[in-house]
Amino acid sequence: MMNIFEENAPLLSAYWPFLFLPLVVFTLFYISIMFRKRRGIDEESINDIGDMDINDQLMLSNQSKADRIPYKLPRCDKNDLIYKTKSFYQTMNLRRSCRMFSSEKVPEIVIENIIKAAGTAPSGAHTEPWTFVVVERQDLKKKIRDIIEEEEEINYTRRMGEKWVNDLKQFKTDWIKPYLEEAPYLILVFKQTYGFWPDGTRKVHYYNEMSVSISVGILLAAISNAGLCTVTSTPLNAGTRLRDLLGRPSNEKCVILLPVGYPSKTATVPNLKRKPLQDILFRC
Amino acid sequence: MMNIFEENAPLLSAYWPFLFLPLVVFTLFYISIMFRKRRGIDEESINDIGDMDINDQLMLSNQSKADRIPYKLPRCDKNDLIYKTKSFYQTMNLRRSCRMFSSEKVPEIVIENIIKAAGTAPSGAHTEPWTFVVVERQDLKKKIRDIIEEEEEINYTRRMGEKWVNDLKQFKTDWIKPYLEEAPYLILVFKQTYGFWPDGTRKVHYYNEMSVSISVGILLAAISNAGLCTVTSTPLNAGTRLRDLLGRPSNEKCVILLPVGYPSKTATVPNLKRKPLQDILFRC
Repeated sequence: MMNIFEENAPLLSAYWPFLFLPLVVFTLFYISIMFRKRRGIDEESINDIGDMDINDQLMLSNQSKADRIPYKLPRCDKNDLIYKTKSFYQTMNLRRSCRMFSSEKVPEIVIENIIKAAGTAPSGAHTEPWTFVVVERQDLKKKIRDIIEEEEEINYTRRMGEKWVNDLKQFKTDWIKPYLEEAPYLILVFKQTYGFWPDGTRKVHYYNEMSVSISVGILLAAISNAGLCTVTSTPLNAGTRLRDLLGRPSNEKCVILLPVGYPSKTATVPNLKRKPLQDILFRC
Repeated sequence: MMNIFEENAPLLSAYWPFLFLPLVVFTLFYISIMFRKRRGIDEESINDIGDMDINDQLMLSNQSKADRIPYKLPRCDKNDLIYKTKSFYQTMNLRRSCRMFSSEKVPEIVIENIIKAAGTAPSGAHTEPWTFVVVERQDLKKKIRDIIEEEEEINYTRRMGEKWVNDLKQFKTDWIKPYLEEAPYLILVFKQTYGFWPDGTRKVHYYNEMSVSISVGILLAAISNAGLCTVTSTPLNAGTRLRDLLGRPSNEKCVILLPVGYPSKTATVPNLKRKPLQDILFRC
């Protein structure tokens, strides 16, 4: 056995310790990376295990479990109920992603009421892991637009997968977004990826992205209810720069950006249809 | 060099090929796993790169870009607007996670209207990646309860991190959920992790979880608007069993389960407060 090796691979045979040892080091290095990755995934999955309906009791740590209050809701008769729900659907159905805004001002109190509505959303462990930054200053809107357009250009030209770019090519979608300056308000929605207990230690924010997204759903409902329009956009890789620009802390990440205002007089939207009810609702 | 090895480790020296070759195989195996993992992450990140406001144009592939329609919204005067938004907030603010339901029936058309409202949510590339399964049959509700309670017991006793279990311990939260049988309806919300093009190839559903969560936000708004109540719960690891029970396809995953009905006459909720507006809204 040894002779065959020595005859056919004399160099390998003579210097194998120099190959063998780096290989051992290399292997151990890779294994350690693997384990670190696995541990990372386990930590992640803790966030994923839990139940929003249990979690909201976590915040009760300073309250006795007996501290409960009666829960009653106003009732209306059957016909009113049917009318109300139909009318609500019709209002929601007016919502379209609109990129053409009037510069007409919207009263500040209206924006406040809309965000108060969003703040009623449920959240894992009642952590309310959301921050809404409302930008009205024209110079800041310009800076936000610059950041988003720059990052988006990089996305188009460098980061995006080939498939994605091909999907978009036929529409010649570009990264020019004048509406970020035209809309009277930009609402930047941040998720708080973690929080702090009173003693300063980190508090896990279970389900923070899901909670914030649900809150944005209620925000959109409030915007439609007000007869205003918006476009639901995700600020790509601009999150950190936007956070720095707006002076938000490092536990916050900008997940959604919503320009809000009235549609411009010449606004148009793509002629899209929604799925019919029988494609989204199944009864058992 | 060779002599030192031969003297001190005669066995290793004699049989190194038998150690060396398995080590090479082992290393290559690990490297291949690493690369597969990395590729997985890259595919994932494509989902994360993009912009909901761009993506909704993807579905226009069969339409010309010129196929646009005017977008107008009904207007009301300033005072009406302030009243409407305040009133909407007040209705939303009645929402609490409620686990005590009356068995009183709710008209089917009301549930339909609520889900139609949820179906108006925006979605990445206008993929509308949601399925709402409404369960009214008592035997199915019982089966769903059994599945969820079983999985939850396993979560409590085995899967959950130590920290999480400690967080919950003080409340003696248990996994008994009678309300899953008491509420007249269970709405199970599935995300479609991917879809299909007309030619049968897989269609990527960008932002499917965020889109579905936003849709659930509108669903919750519609439920509150109707004077009904619910509790936003995530069905833990029961997703696959629920999918099989309800005969949903393998591209769907149950992300949220909502029992829906009227609160029972004796319903109570924890005496929680929400964050004040100045803790969630920042102006620039």
